[in-house]
Amino acid sequence: MAFHSIIPAGGIGSRLWPLSRADQPKFLTDFTGSGASMLQETVARLKKVTDTCTIVTGEKYAEAVESLFPSMCVLAEPSPRGTMPAIALAAGIISYQDPQAIVGSFAADHYIRDEQAFSQAVACAVEAARAGYIATIGIQPDSPSTAYGYIKRDEELEVPGAYLATDFVEKPDAELAQQYVDSGHYFWNAGIFIAKASVLLERLEALRPDIAQPISEIAGAWGSPDYEETLARLWPTIPDTVIDRVIAEPCASEGRVAVVPASMGWSDIGDFDSLAEIVDGADTQENVLAIDSPDSLVLGADKPVVLLGIEGAVVVETPEALLVTRRDCAQDVKKIVERLPEHLL
Amino acid sequence: MAFHSIIPAGGIGSRLWPLSRADQPKFLTDFTGSGASMLQETVARLKKVTDTCTIVTGEKYAEAVESLFPSMCVLAEPSPRGTMPAIALAAGIISYQDPQAIVGSFAADHYIRDEQAFSQAVACAVEAARAGYIATIGIQPDSPSTAYGYIKRDEELEVPGAYLATDFVEKPDAELAQQYVDSGHYFWNAGIFIAKASVLLERLEALRPDIAQPISEIAGAWGSPDYEETLARLWPTIPDTVIDRVIAEPCASEGRVAVVPASMGWSDIGDFDSLAEIVDGADTQENVLAIDSPDSLVLGADKPVVLLGIEGAVVVETPEALLVTRRDCAQDVKKIVERLPEHLL
Repeated sequence: MAFHSIIPAGGIGSRLWPLSRADQPKFLTDFTGSGASMLQETVARLKKVTDTCTIVTGEKYAEAVESLFPSMCVLAEPSPRGTMPAIALAAGIISYQDPQAIVGSFAADHYIRDEQAFSQAVACAVEAARAGYIATIGIQPDSPSTAYGYIKRDEELEVPGAYLATDFVEKPDAELAQQYVDSGHYFWNAGIFIAKASVLLERLEALRPDIAQPISEIAGAWGSPDYEETLARLWPTIPDTVIDRVIAEPCASEGRVAVVPASMGWSDIGDFDSLAEIVDGADTQENVLAIDSPDSLVLGADKPVVLLGIEGAVVVETPEALLVTRRDCAQDVKKIVERLPEHLL
Repeated sequence: MAFHSIIPAGGIGSRLWPLSRADQPKFLTDFTGSGASMLQETVARLKKVTDTCTIVTGEKYAEAVESLFPSMCVLAEPSPRGTMPAIALAAGIISYQDPQAIVGSFAADHYIRDEQAFSQAVACAVEAARAGYIATIGIQPDSPSTAYGYIKRDEELEVPGAYLATDFVEKPDAELAQQYVDSGHYFWNAGIFIAKASVLLERLEALRPDIAQPISEIAGAWGSPDYEETLARLWPTIPDTVIDRVIAEPCASEGRVAVVPASMGWSDIGDFDSLAEIVDGADTQENVLAIDSPDSLVLGADKPVVLLGIEGAVVVETPEALLVTRRDCAQDVKKIVERLPEHLL
């Protein structure tokens, strides 16, 4: 059973403006200074553990993605519909070509420091998928974050390292998050799902035929002259949904979901506060003098920067714009995008 | 009796880095967006009320100043020695040419919004100088500032609008400043002194012959082939002193100082906090989006700037550097200069 990865690459990442913008979405941006975009890093990581990669992205970005990965399958969505339709379409196409396929969906724009731990967790999740489970990787929380959903585990399964996942819960408040972390039974939901394509599509058919049927028809047309017409006709009818809600939660209730806990230096780099945990801080940057400004972040500036008297300052410069804020306002950066003139988005 | 202005133009203005720098001192910078440097604005203002202007500046800046004002007298100091030697040298040279001269010293880098009020106050101070006083202009305080020295007034003199100045006090603490302002008898010391050159030089001779004698010798050599040699030989022997300490304070004790109170929209633009009171704030700038960042200041940025969640933010961009701080850290900007590598000063 070959293992195929699916990468839904959709989100712009508006909390990371102006590094990420409508024409330069988060997954096409290099945040960590590695020289590679998040998507390139994701693909490089997945190539080591999977047989093929399929990227599902917006029509607007398809050309840029194809040029980055000329030999890979790139599916273009006519409009954003959430992760469920994107993953199901890719799984459907893969399944037509390889009915025994195991598929795994991985976000295009997450950071993983410890690739070895990642590979081991994926291997374990693939074993659980072979055993018929819908498997996910649960990130061992290193803080009571309120920015992530959590997965609750129960007993260990017959696959060593994999546990029965009994619940998927939304982002908790601080008190609940602390209880989750203290319990030792809750893990961050990193949006990684690994399963037999047949299992995934069968559960989708059972739970949401309104999604499964048009997806099946579009996937069936893949490679034929009718594909574009079928996609254009049916895609707009598909509800905007995410795999967590449509598959993971109900299947966890049915006892069909496995979670593989892992510590792998994961971050979704959702905002500048989490980015600051990963990249070099202002204190250590050669081009930055930070006075009375601990825990600050300076990105993209092409000239010397002096910070004075702002704790957790965030300074982000691009050729188009300069953002000055604080890490504890990181979640509010998306407010900016709502108020900016279009040419700056 | 002709009235000659003297402009000591020395200070770099290190609390206004990176707008002002060693090679671009405060007096050669345009802070208000008027298109003219502080010195150009000062000269333009003084030309309306005085017969000649003499600028005393550092050797490093003399060429730039001469090119701005080719028809004016520019004296180059071999090294900075404070305002007293600079003013005395200019007064000495003027006095040789016009023994009846009244001279007035005016900072090269102060802002005055209300030129009419300024002209009226100067005219009144000149009258007091004619009557033999060393006259100063006292700025009506609009807040209990701790950034300025204060001048105390007593009864009105025979020159209407001029009062006897009885005391010059250093920058007070906040409590004392409040008492000063509440009393109605204290005014900010703007460093403006107007007197007969003969009175000024006579008091200097009496109080500080160690300054007066070398200054007299240098001034006497002005226009002769010996000037440069005399200057180079004697200047280094002159103590670094300011006119406030050497002349104003002791002469106030002697009852020889007059103060003319005035409200003229004066600011010394000593730091970014006071500059923010004068120029357009971030809220009204077309190129700036300020969210949850009231009372902020953005200067020099050549691209759109977004501020988020920093009250009183100060963002100053030049081709050489970017400064990000807060208005209530404005006094600490000079700390930066102490810690910067030389090529950024």
